[in-house]
Amino acid sequence: MIIVLKPHATKTDADEILGQIEELGLKPLYMPGVERTVLGALGDERVIGRLHLESHPLVERVTPILSSYKLVSRDLHPEDTVVRLGDVPVGGSVFTVIAGPCAVESREQMTATAEAVKAGGAHALRGGAYKPRSSPYSFQGLGLEGLKILQEVSETTGLPAVTEVVEVADVAAVEEHAAAFQVGARNMQNFRLLKAIGGSPTPVILKRGMAATVDDLLLAAEYIVSEGNHDVILCERGIRTFETATRNTLDLNAVPHIKARSHLPVIVDPSHGTGVRDYVAPMAKAAAACGADGLLVEVHSDPKAALSDGQQSLHPEEFERLMGELAPFVEAAGRHL
Amino acid sequence: MIIVLKPHATKTDADEILGQIEELGLKPLYMPGVERTVLGALGDERVIGRLHLESHPLVERVTPILSSYKLVSRDLHPEDTVVRLGDVPVGGSVFTVIAGPCAVESREQMTATAEAVKAGGAHALRGGAYKPRSSPYSFQGLGLEGLKILQEVSETTGLPAVTEVVEVADVAAVEEHAAAFQVGARNMQNFRLLKAIGGSPTPVILKRGMAATVDDLLLAAEYIVSEGNHDVILCERGIRTFETATRNTLDLNAVPHIKARSHLPVIVDPSHGTGVRDYVAPMAKAAAACGADGLLVEVHSDPKAALSDGQQSLHPEEFERLMGELAPFVEAAGRHL
Amino acid sequence: MIIVLKPHATKTDADEILGQIEELGLKPLYMPGVERTVLGALGDERVIGRLHLESHPLVERVTPILSSYKLVSRDLHPEDTVVRLGDVPVGGSVFTVIAGPCAVESREQMTATAEAVKAGGAHALRGGAYKPRSSPYSFQGLGLEGLKILQEVSETTGLPAVTEVVEVADVAAVEEHAAAFQVGARNMQNFRLLKAIGGSPTPVILKRGMAATVDDLLLAAEYIVSEGNHDVILCERGIRTFETATRNTLDLNAVPHIKARSHLPVIVDPSHGTGVRDYVAPMAKAAAACGADGLLVEVHSDPKAALSDGQQSLHPEEFERLMGELAPFVEAAGRHL
Amino acid sequence: MIIVLKPHATKTDADEILGQIEELGLKPLYMPGVERTVLGALGDERVIGRLHLESHPLVERVTPILSSYKLVSRDLHPEDTVVRLGDVPVGGSVFTVIAGPCAVESREQMTATAEAVKAGGAHALRGGAYKPRSSPYSFQGLGLEGLKILQEVSETTGLPAVTEVVEVADVAAVEEHAAAFQVGARNMQNFRLLKAIGGSPTPVILKRGMAATVDDLLLAAEYIVSEGNHDVILCERGIRTFETATRNTLDLNAVPHIKARSHLPVIVDPSHGTGVRDYVAPMAKAAAACGADGLLVEVHSDPKAALSDGQQSLHPEEFERLMGELAPFVEAAGRHL
Repeated sequence: MIIVLKPHATKTDADEILGQIEELGLKPLYMPGVERTVLGALGDERVIGRLHLESHPLVERVTPILSSYKLVSRDLHPEDTVVRLGDVPVGGSVFTVIAGPCAVESREQMTATAEAVKAGGAHALRGGAYKPRSSPYSFQGLGLEGLKILQEVSETTGLPAVTEVVEVADVAAVEEHAAAFQVGARNMQNFRLLKAIGGSPTPVILKRGMAATVDDLLLAAEYIVSEGNHDVILCERGIRTFETATRNTLDLNAVPHIKARSHLPVIVDPSHGTGVRDYVAPMAKAAAACGADGLLVEVHSDPKAALSDGQQSLHPEEFERLMGELAPFVEAAGRHL
Repeated sequence: MIIVLKPHATKTDADEILGQIEELGLKPLYMPGVERTVLGALGDERVIGRLHLESHPLVERVTPILSSYKLVSRDLHPEDTVVRLGDVPVGGSVFTVIAGPCAVESREQMTATAEAVKAGGAHALRGGAYKPRSSPYSFQGLGLEGLKILQEVSETTGLPAVTEVVEVADVAAVEEHAAAFQVGARNMQNFRLLKAIGGSPTPVILKRGMAATVDDLLLAAEYIVSEGNHDVILCERGIRTFETATRNTLDLNAVPHIKARSHLPVIVDPSHGTGVRDYVAPMAKAAAACGADGLLVEVHSDPKAALSDGQQSLHPEEFERLMGELAPFVEAAGRHL
Repeated sequence: MIIVLKPHATKTDADEILGQIEELGLKPLYMPGVERTVLGALGDERVIGRLHLESHPLVERVTPILSSYKLVSRDLHPEDTVVRLGDVPVGGSVFTVIAGPCAVESREQMTATAEAVKAGGAHALRGGAYKPRSSPYSFQGLGLEGLKILQEVSETTGLPAVTEVVEVADVAAVEEHAAAFQVGARNMQNFRLLKAIGGSPTPVILKRGMAATVDDLLLAAEYIVSEGNHDVILCERGIRTFETATRNTLDLNAVPHIKARSHLPVIVDPSHGTGVRDYVAPMAKAAAACGADGLLVEVHSDPKAALSDGQQSLHPEEFERLMGELAPFVEAAGRHL
Repeated sequence: MIIVLKPHATKTDADEILGQIEELGLKPLYMPGVERTVLGALGDERVIGRLHLESHPLVERVTPILSSYKLVSRDLHPEDTVVRLGDVPVGGSVFTVIAGPCAVESREQMTATAEAVKAGGAHALRGGAYKPRSSPYSFQGLGLEGLKILQEVSETTGLPAVTEVVEVADVAAVEEHAAAFQVGARNMQNFRLLKAIGGSPTPVILKRGMAATVDDLLLAAEYIVSEGNHDVILCERGIRTFETATRNTLDLNAVPHIKARSHLPVIVDPSHGTGVRDYVAPMAKAAAACGADGLLVEVHSDPKAALSDGQQSLHPEEFERLMGELAPFVEAAGRHL
């Protein structure tokens, strides 16, 4: 940890802080400069955190050297992690496509969509039973009934199902009915939920929050992994910026950046990442090209009738076309569908 | 609602949509233009939402005329709402100051801080028992034990206490031990939590999310109010922007904007809004000047030893000085402390 | 144009505005609603702009139906435009790669780099003689001397050269020595510069500003085209967001979005878009995959010695590898290198 | 400067870099850690910039200790600077109000507005002759004719005039006709313009760019001051964020932050900072409360007829009311109008 002192800090002030660093068993460093004195503390930065030097009146700035995540870091775990949704791998040589509607609306809609995405070549199914919606007057999902429909359709089609969990109390039910949890952008820092999921053996797709940096996302994953659940898939789904032409700004830079920092698989959601049906296919290809491990994509048997996110859902035939067009990009990236 | 059609949409396409609008009991409007055809639908926009026109392949854009919040809107409720924390009013002629540490750390720390803020002139006490922290390795709060300490200190000092609730399962406990819920920025769109609080008679301070627009904040408040709890205080606490010199960018524009749109009281948190102790006092004065109803401000009996947010917590003597300096600004704003 | 009146506006107020709309030769529309009255004006929205209704005290909001750009819009010009840098096309079946150092530093550096990028398969050369730098203490470019070196190396290698122009007074010199202007992000709204370039027959690469929406970018292009210069290539190079892990957030969503709205070619700059050498190749591939017409990429014969942007410049061998890896992605996108 | 090496860097790699640091006459520091090796370089960081260590393949991150601005820094110049517009001081005990229309439209409009703001108590006059506008189809200003009108009205009313300069070629004309330059947000990093102004004896109001951090703003000011012009007034006018309810997000945090870092005066533009007439007064008061040295505010004799920015311009009577209401806030801040 690097500690920059304020201009008027004296040698005595520095010595006092250096003494505290030494007491914690860390190696202190004194670096006097012309305009500022800089101190260093070598060793476990989580230990020095206890000194709360950032709130010291003579400290101008504290800069950590190490990231605060550890278990999800590639530093300590250089090989890629492969997570399995049922028997579908995410993070290896397959480019995994998880497709389905935003929300489970009915058995008919779910069956029609699942069969369509299966025919198109999807590896897994998505569909929300609990829907976090900005307005209390929007459709809120079918709840447990939706989970049951999802499981049924998953069994019929043989596609493992992913579904969102929004509340600790629902963890057990989702675990029972689905192959994987999805934690949505709005709950990425719902730490109680992350801990609850961390105690489960079921894999989780963790979506990046709208205002979350990649570091925040990795720390959120660290919450889950530090509770014992190592099967975390990260999902880039766009961040909120000043650009309103698209629903979010899909931050594909995050894909190589996460790959450099973490061993966890990363998938991309071009549906929420753009919010515009016509932009889903180009951004899906871009995701494959920049090294993502797969996609989470919204498909609806009849988008015009969708109860949510219809404007970003692909028609079954559009999905089929996307899968066809995607193949050469996936191959160019050294993977297969 | 205004519906802009794509350039190649025909009169027949327009007629089909106008027919659907009419069937819903709304008044349809046809506005052909040189480059685009525009349709209108007059009436309850929540009804026309059912048509999901934004996902129609021939629709370029759907622009609502009305906001989607209703109960929190000033349109339907022109008078200011006054919310009471115990017997402390928020939203009337008093500029209400709620002060205390980020986290309840111990009985001693809480007592010392509460007495200090009371001596300084605070109206109510804050202190977190459940702490949402970015890293799993940071202090997570004392939980129920913290709630009990908070209640005890609240009773001793006579200051009503506000504390954060992060999970539906804790709503009852917080209700029992505190005068008001606080919903933090990270949970602003934890809709299950909002609904649970909506069923409680205890007031709530709802903090704006880091990526939330004012409209998102008002919709989140609508979740609470629509469940029956009308005692919602909104809190501007900074949004996430590209500027990293301060922890967040305090958006004081939001104060007059919320006042124009909603009847709910608005307070400002200059501690999280800046993240820098020295900027808390100037921004507290600015909050009073632009029409806020009060402050939520972090004070710690010994910031150097604080387990969280020490760098933005005021020392007791700094808080006392702030209250003294604040008074003429509050009076200039037509209120009193 | 759609004009939403404030709640207390009366029928008389509406009639007065409708009268003004009619006087301008536009078709007025009256749409009274329960909570708000909405007015419409059909016809050329640039004409109604003269009424300045957005500043009318009884007007709540004015929403244009049409975009304010016209000449760059695909509505009026459905076919893709192909711009030629010397004899190198941008915007057709070729995926055009423009490579070279951030700055022209010396004849030796420029020659070595140009030969390297030519060997790697680049179609054109980049290199700045006038460098806009955040700090006055950073290297500011060689100026006219740099332009001459660039031209010389361009002639030797046969690669047309692109170089930045930062000031009206330099337009003639750049025109004389280079095949195309580059307008940098910081000058995207230097409208006097845009107009000066608009009067030139030399093509221009217009980079998106760090805080510019795609609409702002298209309006900036409209400045150039409306002065008579139709040869504008747009360049996505990242926007400024809260994410600081990368220098900018490359907004690849902008590629399909611009393609939908405009007929102008779009290239991507993954060097500035990421600021990190290791992320340039993945994002270059992503650019090809999502439909971009080419790349602007920084290569330096010796990045360790680069006077600017060394951390995002590719080594010659990295560039060669990128070109090899890029080929199958470009082919999958239906183009060739 | 702190240099963090990549995990696989060896002692030999570190020694090579330490040798380079020493050769430059700086003091090298070696700090081996468990997970990363950290190097330090003490001395003038502008010198070590020559090593371009951020582009070294074994360097993970370079963190400067010192800011890169020097002349504008409070470190080296602890006393507040007072700049004079004619005989009107900015930065001392007066809270200086500069008011007038967005654009000079005609002698009549300018005279009427100038007399109104003078009657209201303004200290100086604003009005643009060269208008940077997003669309080429919007009013572009009267140019030299506008400058002459401005000067005439300035002389008649005795109010010194501030006007925007957008181009090096206009610097002499603006210098001749106005008391101060204004550099707009879009030109904050037009470095050639900054240098040209730096060579002039005329004061300048430098507005923050929409995507500029406070550090960027201070570096832009450093460009002007390093050329010899010390009379720079900084202006916070809002930044671009995801919040679209207001035209920009006024970042008042920047006021105490700039005051802490720089000796230059800071004024606030609540007109552009909000874009909404009704929010100008509350934010003007907030600016006074948080320590700003003055205001730049748009007033128009007839906002309904304004050729630009009418929706954010105050009516003369609104300006007069603002000045009355502002007085107690200015006094509470220890200044006077």
